[in-house]
Amino acid sequence: MTEMLKGIAASDGIARAKAYLLVQPDLSFSKKSIDSVDGEVARLQAAVTASTEELQKIRDIAVKSLGEEEAQVFDAHMMILADPEFVGAVETGIKNDKTNAEQVLHDVSTQFVEMFEAMTDNPYMQERAADIRDVTKRVMSHLLGVTLPNPALIDEEVVIIAHDLTPSDTAQLNRKYVKGFITDLGGRTSHSAIMARSLEIPAIVGTEKATEVVNEDQMVIVDGNTGDALLDPSDADIAKYDQAAKDFAAQKAEWEKLKNERTVTKDGKNFITAANIGTPDDVVGATDNGAEAVGLFRSEFLYMDSAELPTEDEQFEAYKKALEGMNGNQVVVRTMDIGGDKHLPYLPLPEEMNPFLGYRAIRISLDRQDIFRTQLRALLRASNYGNLAIMFPMIATVSEFKQARAIYDEERAKLVKAGTPVADKIEVGMMMEIPAAAVIADKLAKYADFFSIGTNDLIQYSMAADRGNEHVSYLYQPYNPSILRLVKRIIDAAHAEGKWAGMCGEAAGDPIMVPLLLGMGLDEYSMSATSILKIRSLMRQLDTNDMKALADKALTDAETNEDVIALVKSVTQA
Amino acid sequence: MTEMLKGIAASDGIARAKAYLLVQPDLSFSKKSIDSVDGEVARLQAAVTASTEELQKIRDIAVKSLGEEEAQVFDAHMMILADPEFVGAVETGIKNDKTNAEQVLHDVSTQFVEMFEAMTDNPYMQERAADIRDVTKRVMSHLLGVTLPNPALIDEEVVIIAHDLTPSDTAQLNRKYVKGFITDLGGRTSHSAIMARSLEIPAIVGTEKATEVVNEDQMVIVDGNTGDALLDPSDADIAKYDQAAKDFAAQKAEWEKLKNERTVTKDGKNFITAANIGTPDDVVGATDNGAEAVGLFRSEFLYMDSAELPTEDEQFEAYKKALEGMNGNQVVVRTMDIGGDKHLPYLPLPEEMNPFLGYRAIRISLDRQDIFRTQLRALLRASNYGNLAIMFPMIATVSEFKQARAIYDEERAKLVKAGTPVADKIEVGMMMEIPAAAVIADKLAKYADFFSIGTNDLIQYSMAADRGNEHVSYLYQPYNPSILRLVKRIIDAAHAEGKWAGMCGEAAGDPIMVPLLLGMGLDEYSMSATSILKIRSLMRQLDTNDMKALADKALTDAETNEDVIALVKSVTQA
Repeated sequence: MTEMLKGIAASDGIARAKAYLLVQPDLSFSKKSIDSVDGEVARLQAAVTASTEELQKIRDIAVKSLGEEEAQVFDAHMMILADPEFVGAVETGIKNDKTNAEQVLHDVSTQFVEMFEAMTDNPYMQERAADIRDVTKRVMSHLLGVTLPNPALIDEEVVIIAHDLTPSDTAQLNRKYVKGFITDLGGRTSHSAIMARSLEIPAIVGTEKATEVVNEDQMVIVDGNTGDALLDPSDADIAKYDQAAKDFAAQKAEWEKLKNERTVTKDGKNFITAANIGTPDDVVGATDNGAEAVGLFRSEFLYMDSAELPTEDEQFEAYKKALEGMNGNQVVVRTMDIGGDKHLPYLPLPEEMNPFLGYRAIRISLDRQDIFRTQLRALLRASNYGNLAIMFPMIATVSEFKQARAIYDEERAKLVKAGTPVADKIEVGMMMEIPAAAVIADKLAKYADFFSIGTNDLIQYSMAADRGNEHVSYLYQPYNPSILRLVKRIIDAAHAEGKWAGMCGEAAGDPIMVPLLLGMGLDEYSMSATSILKIRSLMRQLDTNDMKALADKALTDAETNEDVIALVKSVTQA
Repeated sequence: MTEMLKGIAASDGIARAKAYLLVQPDLSFSKKSIDSVDGEVARLQAAVTASTEELQKIRDIAVKSLGEEEAQVFDAHMMILADPEFVGAVETGIKNDKTNAEQVLHDVSTQFVEMFEAMTDNPYMQERAADIRDVTKRVMSHLLGVTLPNPALIDEEVVIIAHDLTPSDTAQLNRKYVKGFITDLGGRTSHSAIMARSLEIPAIVGTEKATEVVNEDQMVIVDGNTGDALLDPSDADIAKYDQAAKDFAAQKAEWEKLKNERTVTKDGKNFITAANIGTPDDVVGATDNGAEAVGLFRSEFLYMDSAELPTEDEQFEAYKKALEGMNGNQVVVRTMDIGGDKHLPYLPLPEEMNPFLGYRAIRISLDRQDIFRTQLRALLRASNYGNLAIMFPMIATVSEFKQARAIYDEERAKLVKAGTPVADKIEVGMMMEIPAAAVIADKLAKYADFFSIGTNDLIQYSMAADRGNEHVSYLYQPYNPSILRLVKRIIDAAHAEGKWAGMCGEAAGDPIMVPLLLGMGLDEYSMSATSILKIRSLMRQLDTNDMKALADKALTDAETNEDVIALVKSVTQA
């Protein structure tokens, strides 16, 4: 019988495939004395051999599906298993302590991990600690006779069922075979959800129990438009959802026609729909989806995918590539936004009780001006290759913005003086994501060339609720009148000074939010590239005068998040 | 030669005394093999004997200076040293492992601490873990030949020099001999500063280096009015500061005359100056300092000074005592505000990445209605003994307030139905400390009877900067126009609905802030009791029309915290 599983619709589309449970098995064990040392060493050797064979197999597949670079991690694992120091230490331990292989493997592994992790000035050795952990897990699974999930080995169409998906999980997935995601945890802004939208596969998150109720190889239908999943669907269900999938494909084909169109409302007003990107390569997806600009280029990848601070030249090449890829359309680069939950192995940050309220983003840049100036120089040098804009994250006060801008002006003047070509016009703006900044947006608008509203952080700080904390997730309320009023204040303040205002949070691609934003006069909507055409299509059906009336009502009459949702639905679905 | 040390003026007054360094010595050691087991055991026994004698001495003094209850902790420490299980285990360890006493003491102590801490359902045994730690430190200091500070032994006038002062440090201080504090860390709202104001002793915090530059027994002058400390003052300095101290005492005597006066401005407008209190006993200090009301009664002490949830009757008695002590003047009780950095041993809270953005205050109360309803019933029953008001902390949305108020209404109706006497009029209001609430204050004012602005949290969330984090302490900006505008919005929203607005953060007793608050029309000013008369005196010199012009200028023209400080100083010191 068909079973139903409900969650949060996180990425549009409908898919049908067998379930693949990406769930870590139980690797717990007890310490035991052993009688036969030789038997135990033989058991260890068998587990090591099986692990090596498995790794070789995974490596071969990974090279084909993911590329040589992604496959190298498995070489590192095999080298550890071939290293007599590591496996030898486990054998010696078994012989000396007459203890079971699981316990000795665990102890030896812990020693090696601690040793590598202690080398805090050597990021390469610190990464080896992660390799030791991974390879230990694999040998342990063979000792215990349980199966580790090996997503790199997937060679048929599947729907991934997981508790949550981490970046390292998704890195190993073969995009060709993964047709959908269903997770226990997460919301529309979690990593799994963002990744699914970027891969353009349907996803349902926050089901709370997918990994418990779904069985390996069970047939699953994922409806990412509604958040419903069907397990063991009947023939009638399959027919119904296949039709829905066809309809969705037809709708996508309709949207596709808007790819080279401008974004225009029913009453003929123009707006900008733009893409959020994470690397220069993402520019391809942005232009394929008809982005009129890049509204947010997160520069963190340069810092996070590196073993040391990226050089000025490395950064210059990355920015240049993104700018050239956008063919003269604007690319807004956000300067380094690390700290909070983003750490760099080579840049130790203080231990903080509340990292989201701590030393991060522009606060680090103003303190570590060496890092900041290098980034600004790279950006300025790249500016000659396209239409660059720069924005600073986490600005809270006028003083911070003026200080950051002064540093920019200094670096610019130095380059110009040295004869380095720099674009005449580079807009310098700021993220609007801190309540205090929103409240004095009128003052900031005198100094900033534009504002880009970061809704995730703005909501988190305005509500005093960590968006990653499930105990207060009910306070993630994008439509709460308090948030809308801050957004309105930011837009009005920009316009009063002849500046523009954009939004680069997830809300800019949300069909409930867009009518309100149009009504408030937001100029630029930056979102996951795959949402652009859907939003462009939606805007063509909306009249800005009607939306202004709707927004005014939400700003004046509504008391709660629910009030606003009801208001929007009463207008847009009438 | 006189040396100068600068910090943040944290508590008014001037004092001169010898320095007492409340600094923990280095207790680190290395593991060593020993040759003579007997020698090592004898060394251990000598350290235990010395520790016991020292504890006896401290206990005798503590009984006299602090009272029997405070002294009992030292009995517990002596009992541990007399317990053959503990010291015996160390002796056995020395004999078996042929290892130095420091290492074995450390290992045995760790075992005991872990054992006691594992008894999570027994708060009494968990407290024993703290005792074991303390007593281990003492024995270790004797083994290593270093001196532990013993603040309970102070028997002459001193100025305490510390890195920072914790609640447990201050609990051991004899108030008679402690004339002042100077600390390395902290700001005006840190524990050291609040404690100093409550003890009415001058204090300077945030010097960054007091413990490095001040020597034991060095003569020190603390000027808590300016934040300056003088080391080895010259005779001329001493004369000058003694005169300043006299002048300050004379000024305090002037203020004292206002004790039974109402709070009134130069142009004859009335306001309320009130006290923040932490226990019913604090009502004495509040009335002694002329408080016209209690603007904030923190109810946490009931939960924190207890081994289990306080019963309804225990709470009733505490509230009744506070209400009776205020003789009909209003007492605003804030419902339970735990979570964040306040934890209860008997109420496990989730581990959170950002506790200040987590499960705390009203969020817990709405979730754990059993605890909330017990508190509300105790408050309602006590309401008959005075003029009670109730407020909810950390309200972010209209829905939360309505839900909390509905629970209050239910409990009230139940008690009335059962014939329990309940006051006719109990105002039910809310803390204003979350930016989102401030932005929709007009909506909340329809449901709440009053607002009380909590500046510390309001600033922390508005600026997205943890006020306890030294790396972002520059963002603690009470006068930033963004904060002032939120405060103005809250006051105006209350008045538009015929409600009143108060403030119970440290800012309400701050001479820079008060002129602005008067100008914005704030009705009630609740502060450390010892600040009341100074602020009442200040208000008598201010004209509300002038202050309104000042506030308007700060709200409209100022861009930064510094702009506002300059504005206020230009008017009030002209």
